Amino acid sequence: MMTPQRLLMGPGPSNVSEKVLLATAQPTIGHLDPVFQTMMEEVKALLRFAFQTKNAMTFPISAPASLAMEAALVNLLEPGDTAIIAQKGVFGGRMADIAARAGANVVLLTFDWGTPIIPDVVAGAIKANPDAKLLGFVHAETSTGVCSNAQTLCALASGGGLLSVVDTVTGLGGIPVNVDAWGADVVYSGTQKCLSVPPGLAPITFSDRAIEVIKNRETKVQSWFCDLNLVLGYWSGEGGGRSYHHTAPVNAIYGLLEGLRDLKSEGLEARWARHQQMHQRLSDGLGALGLEFLVEEGARLPQLNTVLIPEGIADAPVRSLLLQKHDIEIGAGLGTLAGKVWRIGLMGETAREENVDRLLYALGEVLQDQRQPAVA
Amino acid sequence: MMTPQRLLMGPGPSNVSEKVLLATAQPTIGHLDPVFQTMMEEVKALLRFAFQTKNAMTFPISAPASLAMEAALVNLLEPGDTAIIAQKGVFGGRMADIAARAGANVVLLTFDWGTPIIPDVVAGAIKANPDAKLLGFVHAETSTGVCSNAQTLCALASGGGLLSVVDTVTGLGGIPVNVDAWGADVVYSGTQKCLSVPPGLAPITFSDRAIEVIKNRETKVQSWFCDLNLVLGYWSGEGGGRSYHHTAPVNAIYGLLEGLRDLKSEGLEARWARHQQMHQRLSDGLGALGLEFLVEEGARLPQLNTVLIPEGIADAPVRSLLLQKHDIEIGAGLGTLAGKVWRIGLMGETAREENVDRLLYALGEVLQDQRQPAVA
Repeated sequence: MMTPQRLLMGPGPSNVSEKVLLATAQPTIGHLDPVFQTMMEEVKALLRFAFQTKNAMTFPISAPASLAMEAALVNLLEPGDTAIIAQKGVFGGRMADIAARAGANVVLLTFDWGTPIIPDVVAGAIKANPDAKLLGFVHAETSTGVCSNAQTLCALASGGGLLSVVDTVTGLGGIPVNVDAWGADVVYSGTQKCLSVPPGLAPITFSDRAIEVIKNRETKVQSWFCDLNLVLGYWSGEGGGRSYHHTAPVNAIYGLLEGLRDLKSEGLEARWARHQQMHQRLSDGLGALGLEFLVEEGARLPQLNTVLIPEGIADAPVRSLLLQKHDIEIGAGLGTLAGKVWRIGLMGETAREENVDRLLYALGEVLQDQRQPAVA
Repeated sequence: MMTPQRLLMGPGPSNVSEKVLLATAQPTIGHLDPVFQTMMEEVKALLRFAFQTKNAMTFPISAPASLAMEAALVNLLEPGDTAIIAQKGVFGGRMADIAARAGANVVLLTFDWGTPIIPDVVAGAIKANPDAKLLGFVHAETSTGVCSNAQTLCALASGGGLLSVVDTVTGLGGIPVNVDAWGADVVYSGTQKCLSVPPGLAPITFSDRAIEVIKNRETKVQSWFCDLNLVLGYWSGEGGGRSYHHTAPVNAIYGLLEGLRDLKSEGLEARWARHQQMHQRLSDGLGALGLEFLVEEGARLPQLNTVLIPEGIADAPVRSLLLQKHDIEIGAGLGTLAGKVWRIGLMGETAREENVDRLLYALGEVLQDQRQPAVA
């Protein structure tokens, strides 16, 4: 089997280093093997570092990040609870959908796509819904490239006695994520964005306060697979105390471990700075090509750049030419932004000078081709 | 990173070939890349071959098999529905738990652990519950090593107007699984058993009848991630018609594709025969060591051998010595069988003569050591 060598500059997956890929190809061992249990402890410790938290319950869910979103919400919510969801893109909408399926009354606050969540609006909703149990929002909205102020929003939640659920699938490893400093309750991410690990796992962390709420539920969690009371037995038991829940995706976790070791050795500040620098380089180059951002400067995610498709240029042919001629993937717009923007990712391993320059050159060439009338 | 080379003779994961491991380490590409979409179609076609079905909706769920169990049940069941679950081990019990969490009235039929499901009992329950919507059961029960007659049970279900949900996590690729001949409605498996692919994905297939039921639900599926109405858009759309649902675990699917190509090239009958032959070889050798099976001869799974722990021998030290001294993993008993049996897997790549012989030699040595009084 041979797959093409793509430069992955879409909304994820991002490029994965050879070292991480080879780690995933190490011989499979049992999910209850003592060697694997030692790896699990190292993964948990490194995820605490990545999330900047002391939370004991910090581990990777054995599924894509969408299931981490579901795990966060179905564990915290019981039928009849009220959840305030602040939506500024596709993924906030998904949160609201999942919360409703869990039987919650959803108070949905919507913000224009391409703009951040406005804290005053959230504060007003918290005041107007004194019985609300949680506030859910997306920190780094992958569909729009907007960063919201997680620290402020978490403080509003805890100030109002609400739990906070923070989606930072695209954030972790790319921009500051400080779970304990934020006072956040449940925060989750994915492996295939700024951690540059193959897709399929979802790091998640639960505060002690969240654990208490889950342990004291009146009803069973509707999902057996996501029920933290059961998952805990596998991920939190020490040594021989681990109880079987499901078969962990052993090889995928090798890759996550290797990717997290790389994050640790680069350092969080250095990694964040690299993403910022590459964003600046890309931003300068896109400006030179006459392209404009959807998002205002202060709210842009460095790792996910939403660019307005210029007048007179068709969306799909440009993406297709980049892929077919240059082996570069960029992302299409999602939801209401479909056909209006491109999403250019600079995540993890992808966020390197040579990659930014390669994209700028290729995009320039493709745009020029598309603008020229075809020669008869 | 270096992991030990274990011989995996437990209940899964089984050994994975170097070829499959290296396939998973091919460069990551996007989940909407045309090259990946071609792979998805090949995976679907090969899974139809593995399951022996023409079902259009045959694909791998992006999570362990426990979530496939959940997906099967939460898609088919609505609150207030009646589900008949036949339990003969841990995994049938899990089915009942999940069905109850989906709001179903569960009629639980329990059979002694180590014995197969008795069709007459199931027939009686179907007659006594004319409104029941589905029958769920485990074909190859991983906790006991028992095979139940899936063909007969599926026929009872469809004869009574019930849908059938068949767990063959440990069955697929090891013993005959003939979805269409059985007339089964939803059948799922895992990758880490007889397919010898790293753990983390769960092949599943839905009959057209099951799809109709799901499309005509009155309530939303409680799980967003498992909602087949949404997953369909990604896995069944052709070419540009695919819609984003979640980011597929691209590299894991490379591995599955490679493992399925191996299955196809070996052939189903040859693979089943190999498992049967290795079971016979193991069985003879265990007999020579004086060990006895939990399960009666006709109901034994060739790929999962539950052996009674002999009088006077402690469970954990034997498993630990096999692992530490011989790099061989065998499985402990689960649930009510904990401490009473060992589970010796012969799944996929593990089911080879040299592996059977290596285990028999090592087990003989360890048992002899354990029986001898320690020398002062």
